[in-house]
Amino acid sequence: MDEIATHFAVERLLARYVACIDDDRLEEWPAFFAERCRYQIISSENYEKKLPIGVFIATSQGMLKDRVAALREANIYEAQRYRHLVSSILILDNDKGIVRAQSNYHVVRIMQDGATALFSTGRYLDRINLNGAAPVFEEKIVVCDSRRIDTLLAIPL
Amino acid sequence: MDEIATHFAVERLLARYVACIDDDRLEEWPAFFAERCRYQIISSENYEKKLPIGVFIATSQGMLKDRVAALREANIYEAQRYRHLVSSILILDNDKGIVRAQSNYHVVRIMQDGATALFSTGRYLDRINLNGAAPVFEEKIVVCDSRRIDTLLAIPL
Amino acid sequence: MDEIATHFAVERLLARYVACIDDDRLEEWPAFFAERCRYQIISSENYEKKLPIGVFIATSQGMLKDRVAALREANIYEAQRYRHLVSSILILDNDKGIVRAQSNYHVVRIMQDGATALFSTGRYLDRINLNGAAPVFEEKIVVCDSRRIDTLLAIPL
Repeated sequence: MDEIATHFAVERLLARYVACIDDDRLEEWPAFFAERCRYQIISSENYEKKLPIGVFIATSQGMLKDRVAALREANIYEAQRYRHLVSSILILDNDKGIVRAQSNYHVVRIMQDGATALFSTGRYLDRINLNGAAPVFEEKIVVCDSRRIDTLLAIPL
Repeated sequence: MDEIATHFAVERLLARYVACIDDDRLEEWPAFFAERCRYQIISSENYEKKLPIGVFIATSQGMLKDRVAALREANIYEAQRYRHLVSSILILDNDKGIVRAQSNYHVVRIMQDGATALFSTGRYLDRINLNGAAPVFEEKIVVCDSRRIDTLLAIPL
Repeated sequence: MDEIATHFAVERLLARYVACIDDDRLEEWPAFFAERCRYQIISSENYEKKLPIGVFIATSQGMLKDRVAALREANIYEAQRYRHLVSSILILDNDKGIVRAQSNYHVVRIMQDGATALFSTGRYLDRINLNGAAPVFEEKIVVCDSRRIDTLLAIPL
């Protein structure tokens, strides 16, 4: 796969990923990850200090499914929606279809009463496997710029 | 046209579309649509409930021209500007050059005194005809995340 | 280079450019410009009135290096970070690898205490030389939508 095709595959995966979350199709969200994977939300400060303190961490697709089940149970998801924008995707490395990519995001949160506010900004640091039938995240580290992250964090980023 | 070329054509159309609005070249805006078209601004809530209640709806290029004339008449356009960001474009279907695409947007509004605020977030649901000399929207549904939409809605989204 | 490859080269340059700023690797920032260049931050109002009043202007890579040195000296950079999103890239002209391009940006500023706010929105108007070993900006005009720009402007946009 050439450089442009690789970029396009990553861009498309990210577009499908954020559409899944923004459309509240959370049951489909774990399938974007490999069976054994790493999904972590961490503040920029802790990430740079290499402090292993994440707001949320999961190391398997099963844990992501549990997370969604817990969210549905709590019914928190009804109270809010997200709208992701992602840009400035960079392919950092491509080792036989195992791609490291980074991108920037802004996420806006829309509450049920219509109140809209910037919720989180940061970077996605992804390791993506492009070799399967559909590309999947082997690792997705969400590095949030602000240390002030809503500890509830109802919806995945 | 292959997948990447189709994506590129849609991305370029959307980029030209938002540049036209953000540059206040509203007189050029109706030409982005087919003669018979559907342009609708609707809240996410009404869209999902399939309630046919749109903040604004037009079914021809002529109606869009009337809209622009009304805006110019009212001189409201002088008081504000928009800045669109669009990302996460997905081609959902391509039937011989008739393409269904969706994308995410964040729009910031800048008032004449410089005050800047997030104005609207949401999705574009587009049906685009790529077969003509220039691509045009046959349908553009702007699904706003928030029910709180400024009813004036001076500028198109 | 065909249209898609040119677009991709410009998109990649912009992605690397904003990653450099957002990662606080400011010492690498001047190398994105040609030795003789033009980097200007100007309000939309002054840009449209063709008033030669810029918030900041530099006409060589050396001036950009001086700027970074001054920022490091002042230690202001520690107090804040940016997160850029860039979209709607349009190639306006391509004269043998000298490309004129425009794009939209939203920049969020994150203060050290975690406070996050929309800092600047606007357009990049770029003249890019794609003929060298790495693409460089010959001209980058940052047209800010709001006249209310923080005069300190610690970090480049």
